Amino acid sequence: MKLKVGILGATGMVGQRFIEQLKGHPWFEIEALLASERSAGKKYSDAASWYLTSRIPSGISEMVVEKIDTKVIDRCKLDLIFSAIPSDIAKEIEGSFAEHIPVFSNTATYRMEDDVPLVIPEVNPDHLELIKIQKENRGWNGFIVTNPNCTTIGLIIPLKPILDEFGISWVNVATMQALSGAGYAGVPSMAIVDNVIPFIRNEDEKAELEGLKILGKLKKKEIEFADFYVFASCNRVMVRDGHTEAIFVNTKRDFSIDQVKEVFSAFKGEPQRFRLPTAPERPIVVMDKEDRPQPLFDRDLGAGMSVSVGRIRRRREKLLKFTSLSHNTIRGAAGASILNAELAREKKLI
Amino acid sequence: MKLKVGILGATGMVGQRFIEQLKGHPWFEIEALLASERSAGKKYSDAASWYLTSRIPSGISEMVVEKIDTKVIDRCKLDLIFSAIPSDIAKEIEGSFAEHIPVFSNTATYRMEDDVPLVIPEVNPDHLELIKIQKENRGWNGFIVTNPNCTTIGLIIPLKPILDEFGISWVNVATMQALSGAGYAGVPSMAIVDNVIPFIRNEDEKAELEGLKILGKLKKKEIEFADFYVFASCNRVMVRDGHTEAIFVNTKRDFSIDQVKEVFSAFKGEPQRFRLPTAPERPIVVMDKEDRPQPLFDRDLGAGMSVSVGRIRRRREKLLKFTSLSHNTIRGAAGASILNAELAREKKLI
Amino acid sequence: MKLKVGILGATGMVGQRFIEQLKGHPWFEIEALLASERSAGKKYSDAASWYLTSRIPSGISEMVVEKIDTKVIDRCKLDLIFSAIPSDIAKEIEGSFAEHIPVFSNTATYRMEDDVPLVIPEVNPDHLELIKIQKENRGWNGFIVTNPNCTTIGLIIPLKPILDEFGISWVNVATMQALSGAGYAGVPSMAIVDNVIPFIRNEDEKAELEGLKILGKLKKKEIEFADFYVFASCNRVMVRDGHTEAIFVNTKRDFSIDQVKEVFSAFKGEPQRFRLPTAPERPIVVMDKEDRPQPLFDRDLGAGMSVSVGRIRRRREKLLKFTSLSHNTIRGAAGASILNAELAREKKLI
Amino acid sequence: MKLKVGILGATGMVGQRFIEQLKGHPWFEIEALLASERSAGKKYSDAASWYLTSRIPSGISEMVVEKIDTKVIDRCKLDLIFSAIPSDIAKEIEGSFAEHIPVFSNTATYRMEDDVPLVIPEVNPDHLELIKIQKENRGWNGFIVTNPNCTTIGLIIPLKPILDEFGISWVNVATMQALSGAGYAGVPSMAIVDNVIPFIRNEDEKAELEGLKILGKLKKKEIEFADFYVFASCNRVMVRDGHTEAIFVNTKRDFSIDQVKEVFSAFKGEPQRFRLPTAPERPIVVMDKEDRPQPLFDRDLGAGMSVSVGRIRRRREKLLKFTSLSHNTIRGAAGASILNAELAREKKLI
Repeated sequence: MKLKVGILGATGMVGQRFIEQLKGHPWFEIEALLASERSAGKKYSDAASWYLTSRIPSGISEMVVEKIDTKVIDRCKLDLIFSAIPSDIAKEIEGSFAEHIPVFSNTATYRMEDDVPLVIPEVNPDHLELIKIQKENRGWNGFIVTNPNCTTIGLIIPLKPILDEFGISWVNVATMQALSGAGYAGVPSMAIVDNVIPFIRNEDEKAELEGLKILGKLKKKEIEFADFYVFASCNRVMVRDGHTEAIFVNTKRDFSIDQVKEVFSAFKGEPQRFRLPTAPERPIVVMDKEDRPQPLFDRDLGAGMSVSVGRIRRRREKLLKFTSLSHNTIRGAAGASILNAELAREKKLI
Repeated sequence: MKLKVGILGATGMVGQRFIEQLKGHPWFEIEALLASERSAGKKYSDAASWYLTSRIPSGISEMVVEKIDTKVIDRCKLDLIFSAIPSDIAKEIEGSFAEHIPVFSNTATYRMEDDVPLVIPEVNPDHLELIKIQKENRGWNGFIVTNPNCTTIGLIIPLKPILDEFGISWVNVATMQALSGAGYAGVPSMAIVDNVIPFIRNEDEKAELEGLKILGKLKKKEIEFADFYVFASCNRVMVRDGHTEAIFVNTKRDFSIDQVKEVFSAFKGEPQRFRLPTAPERPIVVMDKEDRPQPLFDRDLGAGMSVSVGRIRRRREKLLKFTSLSHNTIRGAAGASILNAELAREKKLI
Repeated sequence: MKLKVGILGATGMVGQRFIEQLKGHPWFEIEALLASERSAGKKYSDAASWYLTSRIPSGISEMVVEKIDTKVIDRCKLDLIFSAIPSDIAKEIEGSFAEHIPVFSNTATYRMEDDVPLVIPEVNPDHLELIKIQKENRGWNGFIVTNPNCTTIGLIIPLKPILDEFGISWVNVATMQALSGAGYAGVPSMAIVDNVIPFIRNEDEKAELEGLKILGKLKKKEIEFADFYVFASCNRVMVRDGHTEAIFVNTKRDFSIDQVKEVFSAFKGEPQRFRLPTAPERPIVVMDKEDRPQPLFDRDLGAGMSVSVGRIRRRREKLLKFTSLSHNTIRGAAGASILNAELAREKKLI
Repeated sequence: MKLKVGILGATGMVGQRFIEQLKGHPWFEIEALLASERSAGKKYSDAASWYLTSRIPSGISEMVVEKIDTKVIDRCKLDLIFSAIPSDIAKEIEGSFAEHIPVFSNTATYRMEDDVPLVIPEVNPDHLELIKIQKENRGWNGFIVTNPNCTTIGLIIPLKPILDEFGISWVNVATMQALSGAGYAGVPSMAIVDNVIPFIRNEDEKAELEGLKILGKLKKKEIEFADFYVFASCNRVMVRDGHTEAIFVNTKRDFSIDQVKEVFSAFKGEPQRFRLPTAPERPIVVMDKEDRPQPLFDRDLGAGMSVSVGRIRRRREKLLKFTSLSHNTIRGAAGASILNAELAREKKLI
């Protein structure tokens, strides 16, 4: 018996990725599509333009979009929620659903709250233990589990094995981010054709902070943040999907390039060990060619769930540089939430 | 009386910029356009497609392209050469011209030779003194003066006042470089539409080394390189002109953002003091808006000779980040050579 | 003494072109910038992002944007209005201004009304005589003169000499239109990167009808429409500015390609004869190269006011095909209105 | 037992599509990859960059590229050849192979020869009967079957049912063609970013002629060409794959839009009746949405073998317009040749 899920923010770019990624999912099935008043009551195909190049999954077009209201939980017998609603309205809405059932959210709002797990399953699965504290604190029957920002994910997955093996003193990262990260209408074509925009609101800050929580240690009731610093420069470039990141790392112990390739390639986490449905076989794929990874060719590796890395260089002792690429609306958004839910299910938390 | 100049490699992207930038120049006039055998003997308009959006200067279309041969020096009574030929053939060709007359080269070949000045006029005008040593060493009547790679220029101009005021321990730089940097046919459209290429051959290395020579100190007969390190990650993005660079600096002394803005804005060099014809009034323009500089809007500042900077942030003590933007085929190539020639002229070296 | 003008819709894409094109205009000076409630009361530079790659003209940034209200006419002693407001609100607003002073509008709303001139100065300057009828009909002190849609202009200017010389039975036209035609935020980047959109709302219809009015004959109180038909297929492509149109014409009399080139090149109208300030020397520029016109290179010909044509072919008797290119927000919008106002001024209508 | 095939020009853009499309083919298997001297003797993965976003089929990377020489026929026991070599060398090479075995060619060279079938299986399967005459004429053991240019295919497939049902007097077509049509390095990015190119060498001519042969009638020993005319204007736009065509048709009998939709939707040919492996279920897919077809979303319909049509309009009696979209390197090139071979196989011609 599959668990019944509802999607908050089902008409947007990430909402559509949730729908696409849940197609044929062995554990979850979509029972409710929830969106703003403007869409509520309409057939999904009337409420939303389908932005993805994949075909809309059969059955979805005919579903009627629901108003965002917790009454849907009972009516549709929902077991859990995936959320992709705007962060300015998420505080109240996600909270109201979490009173009743688990919420797996891609939205930024709750990420940095002390009792909310911010999880990448391959990196910090143990942080799910915060759920217990969260439920106590808030008196909720459900809970909220968040996944980080798309930029953070492409950064932190490859940093995890580096941190474990060589230690990290500091990280500088410059990103070249895809248009889809801003939502369908987020970047006007007139803003970006023949251009680069060296600014994405709040993005530098997310990339600098979220990773330190994820790589932090769970101490009884809270996370002790990792103690290095990240400095980020986030840029928008004219690519549909796939965030490219140039990552500079000062490690604590020296390394060879071969060692780095090895720790990247060998990296596995609980999703791989438990063979979770959405888990890529290889969370990190090392590209051999000198001009890879490239978003056009590599963003779909591991069905969009692998992070590909390349351009690995050592400038001098303890100074590492590499390029990472990750699909920002799959591994960096909808796929991240789904993998979190799979992990929670595996751990009997839902 | 204007000096008569020849352009080596006149049909390529940078060659065309030389032609465009020399239009109406008060000191220099084009007497010879030199290019490969394939073009020699043809009218310029038949030999070359004009790639620039400006109109081709009058008179140029009808000029006959010459074979690359030093005989042209006498025949056209050339006073100096601007060179934009491919680096693999520059060793011999630029040398053969330098036996007779000064060569101002945008090509990489001679840049790192001990007795060849690698000059940005605002940064290290004193390095022109190497010319004397070069002429002695090589027994040339002329000489070669080089300008750095386009990426280096957008990096080193803003680093100069930072170095002078706050010192530098290290620099990490990630670039988003324009298509024109690879020449007209350098990047196929199929390679870059909906893509980023995280690799440009030899570019990381140039960006890491050239600046240390430029910021080095002239000691009697040679340059003592600057003693910090640069680590570079060079990327190609879908922009026609203008290199954007995310620059992270660890300074030796702490700074405030206002101080950094001030030293950027106050920066001037000999080109400004001598009011050289091509010198921008402001070598560095500090952008106030949070989402600037952008190549589409800012690459033509100072007629393409200003470097614009923005996104200035301080992450913690001594950790500075900013974004620079420079026009890669004007300030970063043809304009750079012309400004070098103007400086040399001002100093009576030609 | 310059005439004082107000711009309705001053913060949008076409509004900005009005501001840019009126910079240093010998006859007109901007006294009032009018826009929606959201912008009113703010400094222009706070109310609007400047979308153009030219610098914002000095003085404009500091001007305070006015609410759209006819009171501004007296307060600023306005002599005329240029309008670039959305068509759904233009009916009432443009009418209310026209009660008092002349309105030169780029908006579609009034174009097809019987007593409103729809004018391209090189094509149908005599249609301005409708103004008298319009004022009588409506009891206005001012009047409205409209210019056609951007697509129509690039089509009808070159059709005019063809019609005069060879007659026209029918026209088929397929367009490749620039992004700026939809306004700054009109086309999301996610809609157009690696794509073509074969649909622009109402555009086929405008391209099919407007030209027949413009090429029609003024009979006493109304226009007798031209009696051929136009069939249009309008498409959006990834170009910033410049509409390219593939135009097929069945003429009434046969022609040679040389004859067509000649009538294009020889074409002049009243703007050229009166030497109006904004008039291009050549309304139609025939491109010799087989691969021109191209928007990137040719949209700025005649300061954006020339239509360039090329690819002229004859398939069989009376079957002509050519490609036209025109700058959609200069010749096709703001420049068109300004040229209309210049013509009206020349004819002492204002 | 599968037939053994060789691919001429295996390293280019269309060659790669042949490899991709033949992956897992039930009737054909790749035994030889042939390319120019420069590639011969190298592993395929060293000889060619894989340009497609699909993964390279397993086994291909390790195959050694062969020199183009008919000796390979015996050595590899080839049953047939697919050819994607440049047209200037195809005359001799394709002929030399056809002396021995069937050649299915995407190259233009032989298309218009009297005794060579130019076939779209859904349109003119009976033209394969020319093979007999060709073999007699030339004394070949094999033969050559060609498929038309990519532009022709997207035009002629939808014209076929229109011709059959309503007759055709003339056709005007303006195309917006994808970059891949010029080969991987055919269009430099500097030529097309923010641009349209209204010229593709020889393309107007191919689009105007080829279709008349295809729609012609086989009379004993030759094809009697269709008797309407086509006038074409071919343009390059910034799209990776997928040719969009605006098609104007003057029919002989009048039609309603619903009738046109019906004949498009009902259209089937021998590939559908024989259920050929590569045949799309629907050769023509009618798009309901007003803004479709679009290359980004619709080029892969029917695994790249369906032509999608939309924007169907009737301007007046007998005047039809619609937009077609087809994948230029699948339906318009490699897939076209493969479908031809499948049809020949079905008809026992190989």
